[in-house]
Amino acid sequence: MASTRRLAAIFAADVAGYSRLMGADEEGTHERLQAHRRELIDPKISQHKGRIVKNTGDGLLAEFASVVDAVRCAAELQRVMIDREAGMPEDHRIRFRIGINLGDVIVEDSDIFGDGVNVAARLEALAEPGRGCQSSCCPLPISAMIRSSNILRTA
Amino acid sequence: MASTRRLAAIFAADVAGYSRLMGADEEGTHERLQAHRRELIDPKISQHKGRIVKNTGDGLLAEFASVVDAVRCAAELQRVMIDREAGMPEDHRIRFRIGINLGDVIVEDSDIFGDGVNVAARLEALAEPGRGCQSSCCPLPISAMIRSSNILRTA
Repeated sequence: MASTRRLAAIFAADVAGYSRLMGADEEGTHERLQAHRRELIDPKISQHKGRIVKNTGDGLLAEFASVVDAVRCAAELQRVMIDREAGMPEDHRIRFRIGINLGDVIVEDSDIFGDGVNVAARLEALAEPGRGCQSSCCPLPISAMIRSSNILRTA
Repeated sequence: MASTRRLAAIFAADVAGYSRLMGADEEGTHERLQAHRRELIDPKISQHKGRIVKNTGDGLLAEFASVVDAVRCAAELQRVMIDREAGMPEDHRIRFRIGINLGDVIVEDSDIFGDGVNVAARLEALAEPGRGCQSSCCPLPISAMIRSSNILRTA
């Protein structure tokens, strides 16, 4: 089976403590998450020329043609989410973890696969809630923006 | 936002040690996995009247209208996978973990959400490679088939 490959900035996001939040308030959490998706996240990804590859229940996998766009998108999302969840009690807040990696992905139909995708998911799992984690292969000039918006850089 | 709900047997499957397998042989693992999906797993799920809700890179989320169908499907998949991977060295084998849970899911468009889905994913993570793990709310009469096919039952 022939595979196509391409370079992509891979963006993985999920909700920290999703099972706990769903256990405490299943329909409320679900509806609030869907509203964040519809009103903020999906439009913001489009605005930064990203493409949502798949939804994962409590998050998504997206790809961007530019790492700068991906990091800028993550930074803006996290900033706006603080305001959107400010009225909720601390332990009920929906907070995203975001992982960004630059990878040479395997492309099939509209799906992407490969080590680069797995690493993005692992970086996401390492990210603190409300923050992001990007691999060191992402370019350096964005560091000022990263610092200003709580997007962490890892080795 | 109105939500529809329905009872479903939720079936979550993924590949044990997928990141390690992809790290060792990215394209080979990917192509073998896609062949298993195309030739065995997707047709077997259809045959048992299941519906694939989404693909997750190294696995899938499916729903069945019957728990018996879901467990039978899992058992058959695991049996056939033993033969399909018999020629590979032990540490290169693709082995699925399968979690099955009966849940009252939130349905939106063609996607499903809710505690029931999260529990299926957690059962899957508990399953041994090549085996399955189902919740105790699944009906009892299938236990003979479960024993005969390495599908475990948990409390």
